[in-house]
Amino acid sequence: MNRFQIFPEGTVTSPAGFTAVALATGIKKEDQLDCAIIYSEQDASCAAMFTQNQVVAAPVIVDKGTLTRNNGRLRTVVINSQNANACTGKPGLDNAHATQKIAAQALECQPDQVLILSTGVIGVQLPMEKLKAGIVAGAKGLSAANGRLAAKAIMTTDTHPKHLAVSVGLPSGTVTIGGMAKGSGMIHPNMATMLAVLTTDAAIAPNVLNGLLNTAVNRSFNRISIDGDTSTNDTVLLLANGASGTAVTNPASITQFSDALNHLCTTLAHMIVRDGEGATKFVEIRVTGAKTEADAHQIGNTIAISPLVKTAFAGSDANWGRLLMAAGRAGVPFDQTIINLWIGADVPDELQLVANGTPTEYLEADAAAIFAQPAFIVWLDLGVGGETAVVWTTDLSHDYVTINADYRT
Amino acid sequence: MNRFQIFPEGTVTSPAGFTAVALATGIKKEDQLDCAIIYSEQDASCAAMFTQNQVVAAPVIVDKGTLTRNNGRLRTVVINSQNANACTGKPGLDNAHATQKIAAQALECQPDQVLILSTGVIGVQLPMEKLKAGIVAGAKGLSAANGRLAAKAIMTTDTHPKHLAVSVGLPSGTVTIGGMAKGSGMIHPNMATMLAVLTTDAAIAPNVLNGLLNTAVNRSFNRISIDGDTSTNDTVLLLANGASGTAVTNPASITQFSDALNHLCTTLAHMIVRDGEGATKFVEIRVTGAKTEADAHQIGNTIAISPLVKTAFAGSDANWGRLLMAAGRAGVPFDQTIINLWIGADVPDELQLVANGTPTEYLEADAAAIFAQPAFIVWLDLGVGGETAVVWTTDLSHDYVTINADYRT
Repeated sequence: MNRFQIFPEGTVTSPAGFTAVALATGIKKEDQLDCAIIYSEQDASCAAMFTQNQVVAAPVIVDKGTLTRNNGRLRTVVINSQNANACTGKPGLDNAHATQKIAAQALECQPDQVLILSTGVIGVQLPMEKLKAGIVAGAKGLSAANGRLAAKAIMTTDTHPKHLAVSVGLPSGTVTIGGMAKGSGMIHPNMATMLAVLTTDAAIAPNVLNGLLNTAVNRSFNRISIDGDTSTNDTVLLLANGASGTAVTNPASITQFSDALNHLCTTLAHMIVRDGEGATKFVEIRVTGAKTEADAHQIGNTIAISPLVKTAFAGSDANWGRLLMAAGRAGVPFDQTIINLWIGADVPDELQLVANGTPTEYLEADAAAIFAQPAFIVWLDLGVGGETAVVWTTDLSHDYVTINADYRT
Repeated sequence: MNRFQIFPEGTVTSPAGFTAVALATGIKKEDQLDCAIIYSEQDASCAAMFTQNQVVAAPVIVDKGTLTRNNGRLRTVVINSQNANACTGKPGLDNAHATQKIAAQALECQPDQVLILSTGVIGVQLPMEKLKAGIVAGAKGLSAANGRLAAKAIMTTDTHPKHLAVSVGLPSGTVTIGGMAKGSGMIHPNMATMLAVLTTDAAIAPNVLNGLLNTAVNRSFNRISIDGDTSTNDTVLLLANGASGTAVTNPASITQFSDALNHLCTTLAHMIVRDGEGATKFVEIRVTGAKTEADAHQIGNTIAISPLVKTAFAGSDANWGRLLMAAGRAGVPFDQTIINLWIGADVPDELQLVANGTPTEYLEADAAAIFAQPAFIVWLDLGVGGETAVVWTTDLSHDYVTINADYRT
């Protein structure tokens, strides 16, 4: 029996008491949507995870401060795309504070009840007049019908909006979790590696909410990599407003809620990988038999970010030597004479390429056929322990170069 | 006054007492050169540095053992291209030992006087019959005239041979250092990141030789990155046979020799970067004002391997936000409000883009003009200490993807 129900068309406004609006404020050209406001009709608790990059955007600095003073009274999240408000110095910080105040005034709440998120080009100041006019006018358009448009408004190089909802039938009542995410480049696991806003109408104590978000993010958004580059703006928020009237308090309910949240986050994370800049392949890197999960994760990551591995994926070339080369440079000691390597499209152990450190007598055509699939699994077993990690990544294609060689023009 | 003289056409056979031969053994197709033998007419000391990848090729394993037993009696280095003899298990190790024995017999020395180097595709067994026939026939062709051909025979995706010699006029006599290197992809600083063979006719004590090689490699080959991928086969050898009759013993001579060796290695390292797979730009990343040299090196490296930075280089897009993003994800703490960033083609401080963490009022056209040059400098000052590191790298272009998406076909 499913312990939760999945709604592929669901959004951040699927949970009760959440509305949204999508705006074209003029930050992007030609009336494109470039700003979303998510609004909770009652005070919400908020768990948050931010980038661990040493260079952090102004909104991240502002939000961290806001969250220390907020005490479960969050109302609004304002997200603009196209401009990251990162590396913008004191003026950028002033603009972030101003945005918070503008939204608070327009939505009749306190600045400390507003979080702001930005994503886009680094090093450019926000056009504050345009943004202010947009937010003031847009605040009147909040509606539960705008969840998908909000997901569209936060896109940069994403090719489609990413959203989902799940509902969890708890003994005490049904709660819903909605989510949206954006991200297509500058994606690499380090706490939170893109923007995502998750909402729920469950009532959940802040400390429990933090733990649930941590668990979910560490197994989903922190396990994906497009290009190894960690953004200055990465933020994941989980808002819980209790509007369902159902509280998640006892251990069994928390576990059930956690499973649903993990599923939601993993699905959004996979959407990001599949929509990775220039991506033509969705690859699961499975590392088993490690001494620690951190070892397995480190090796999986290093394989996932290797340009030579990723270009081989792009060329459908089952050049497995590069997989082992990348594993070997991860900084994790292992014994190359006992490792095993399989690849597979349907099942992970479809074709064994390396047995106890020695190439098997596999047929090149069989390996190439697997790498030619749009999705496949690479499975490396180290044979020294029982720990495991799974990382999801893409290839490095010509389109990635095209997209990024001239992103700003 | 120059303390050493540079010979751009010089090779590993420029020092006295060294000969070479270049062979087409059939490992590559169509009679292309694929094997070089370097021979010292008298016993030579040898300093060596090998890859720190956990996955090491069979010749690296064999050579490490040989060097512990060799006691300054080295005579021969056999280098094949096209096949890395890496991830080849027990058969690969047997082939490496067999190659050593074949060369020893052909050149009338002991197996322990022979080092073997391989570079090329991973996971394929060497065609031993072809290699044996080639070495046996080729041993008769050793000549001091073959230095450049030897540099050509070790190439894989390199577009031209890389070699150089310098001579050092010491008070006690003149000594010569020659060198050749190969490498174009799978290039990233980690002890030694390609193949290079350096020769000198100076007489130098083994412990001094090791120190000199370490110093030179750490400031040259260990400071370059094409793609962040560390090879399974990286090896740098420095052979000293004393054939000049001049010993390098006193501190002043050692320093003078060291300067020349550093120049030789840095020049070869730059040749590798300029010939990087698909490279259209030669970029110097200069990080200053760090607390430690390791911090500066780590930040320089992280900028150098960032796909977003490298694609911006390819597009001549002075998207400096990506430079700061990459610096920020290096794992080195710093204060983003006090950093300064300059770029320049002719001088490092030609154009300041960031002053105390805030963008300057520079003209985009001026920045783009610098990034459009075939060579330029990026200079990041952290402002927290006095340590510095310089790293050299390339862009990530369409040609890199083309070369590596289908390397094996």
